[in-house]
Amino acid sequence: MLKSILASWRAAAVALGLLCVLVSGVHAQTGSDPLPSWDDGPTKRAIIKSVAETTTAGNPDFVAPGARFATFDQDGTLWVEQPMYAQLVFALDRVVALAPEHPEWKTTEPFKSVLAGDRAAIAKFTMKDLETIVFVTHTGMTTGQFTAIVKDWLAKARDPRWHRPFTDLVHQPMLEVMQYLRANGYKTYIVTGGGQAFVRTYAARTYGVPPEQIIGSALETQFTHNAAGDAILMRPPKLLINNDFSGKAEGIYLFIGAPPRAPFGNAAGDRDMLEYTQSGGKGALIMLVLHDDPAREYAYGPAAGLPASKIGTFPQALYDEAKAKGWNVISMKHDWKRIFSFEQ
Amino acid sequence: MLKSILASWRAAAVALGLLCVLVSGVHAQTGSDPLPSWDDGPTKRAIIKSVAETTTAGNPDFVAPGARFATFDQDGTLWVEQPMYAQLVFALDRVVALAPEHPEWKTTEPFKSVLAGDRAAIAKFTMKDLETIVFVTHTGMTTGQFTAIVKDWLAKARDPRWHRPFTDLVHQPMLEVMQYLRANGYKTYIVTGGGQAFVRTYAARTYGVPPEQIIGSALETQFTHNAAGDAILMRPPKLLINNDFSGKAEGIYLFIGAPPRAPFGNAAGDRDMLEYTQSGGKGALIMLVLHDDPAREYAYGPAAGLPASKIGTFPQALYDEAKAKGWNVISMKHDWKRIFSFEQ
Repeated sequence: MLKSILASWRAAAVALGLLCVLVSGVHAQTGSDPLPSWDDGPTKRAIIKSVAETTTAGNPDFVAPGARFATFDQDGTLWVEQPMYAQLVFALDRVVALAPEHPEWKTTEPFKSVLAGDRAAIAKFTMKDLETIVFVTHTGMTTGQFTAIVKDWLAKARDPRWHRPFTDLVHQPMLEVMQYLRANGYKTYIVTGGGQAFVRTYAARTYGVPPEQIIGSALETQFTHNAAGDAILMRPPKLLINNDFSGKAEGIYLFIGAPPRAPFGNAAGDRDMLEYTQSGGKGALIMLVLHDDPAREYAYGPAAGLPASKIGTFPQALYDEAKAKGWNVISMKHDWKRIFSFEQ
Repeated sequence: MLKSILASWRAAAVALGLLCVLVSGVHAQTGSDPLPSWDDGPTKRAIIKSVAETTTAGNPDFVAPGARFATFDQDGTLWVEQPMYAQLVFALDRVVALAPEHPEWKTTEPFKSVLAGDRAAIAKFTMKDLETIVFVTHTGMTTGQFTAIVKDWLAKARDPRWHRPFTDLVHQPMLEVMQYLRANGYKTYIVTGGGQAFVRTYAARTYGVPPEQIIGSALETQFTHNAAGDAILMRPPKLLINNDFSGKAEGIYLFIGAPPRAPFGNAAGDRDMLEYTQSGGKGALIMLVLHDDPAREYAYGPAAGLPASKIGTFPQALYDEAKAKGWNVISMKHDWKRIFSFEQ
């Protein structure tokens, strides 16, 4: 009895907490600053204006709460992707970890280059090489086993520049935008070329995005039973969804059923997602992160004529399209006061 | 200014309404009957017990709100699937509608049988015949055009027994379970062998399930541009996901990332979803609808030794597995006081 009264009070408290979140969210634009890591420039103002318009009943751009979707590319948008994106580091680390069981890898490419730590050779890997590495490191186990392997790796792996867990290298201004949008009734999705199962292992804790809101590249899974007769899902070496370029628009349709209202990207692989958004009608908040801050993060793509990186390319043509179509280009250097939460 | 004050009040009213839903949901089990169309027998009690256990903090079966997922098969579970499930009626109607553009269909199977209204021949169609019909009726247009075609058909089509729109033939007790679960913090998903794009056109209105919570069979889509340069998604004749049998467990993993807590089915095609749920741990609410009421709906499967229908089969082996594993079998005849909302 006491337990049930306590449970009722707890439930009521949760409900009241939710009410407060809703009310504070609705009034966020007039109260305390919801985007403290953003410089008070046109980009920040565009975000706040769009949220106000889409959440104010009667506004021509009002969007019903159930139709407010925001989609975020991960690598290079939500977190650092240089000098190598985290899932590639994971795959290469797994090759090293599995090598004792595969003595033939010492003399077989692409494994030989990985085991030799030959960065120049790795940088030249073909899609076929990468597929070979992904299949030996990401398949042949159950879905639960793969999750455990990723979590174990994440707990130990450190990035080469800040020597921190990869999940620390999240762009603080993007976290603030995600929280701000959620407080205003938006559902936030990650739409990544990376692996859905990989990102799901940390996205709830790192970004506040639950597993059912991760749209990513995905292998097929195979329903079967283990020796004890329990149902399991195996991960066979077969790609089901390649969630990059056109795959991002197609993936959003598969998972959400309509274009988002606010998509965030940083690379050529995000272009189709942004164009698909624009096809949904006027007034969308379309955002591209430009990496132009070599001191605090990295600089690549069209910023100040810097050479495009092989990973996460932001070609000049995309920059020109953004300017022509009125998309917002976020300058890390000028729009972000702070880049990481661990900075003071 | 007046508009913005009104908007604020409206937002506050919405938030308060949501609070009331949450609070009333939390207390549903102690207040008014949340399942009025259910007979007060063991099946109804099993549902209410499971909801109480999973939503009471401190209970060993407590499930955090974000992890409460309920999944519902559609045909035969949420609505009538006899004598022919709605999407097959749609496909056959579309063949008739498109026939004037295809004079060769008069002499070519499987179209010839459809145009002749030969029910015996249609009942014998192979999977290849059905695929041929699905491809000519469901592909070759944009995603938006397909949605418009389905909506137009739904508004006009009537079922052969009650002469009502198909969306009227929803089982009222299942609607009550969905609402009851949602009021208690569950996310309700439809997990259907039918087409995701088809079900999405009416599921929000009919079941209260939004497009992003429809897991179904799905064609690939193809991102491209129309003549005006706008981004569009075409529907090519290529199956991406066959969401039946093992596909239901695999589809749930793809869309949700974990087994549900409460799955509802009625046929062999749902078995893997139920077994996958059981693999997620003890205490799940696993439900199978048994069609044993020929007077008010239909009777098929193992009920009283009736012959299994070709559509929506509920084989004796599934019934035996349910009994052996402690799954709940819902008897339409004995557990449901009322079957349709249009009944008094």
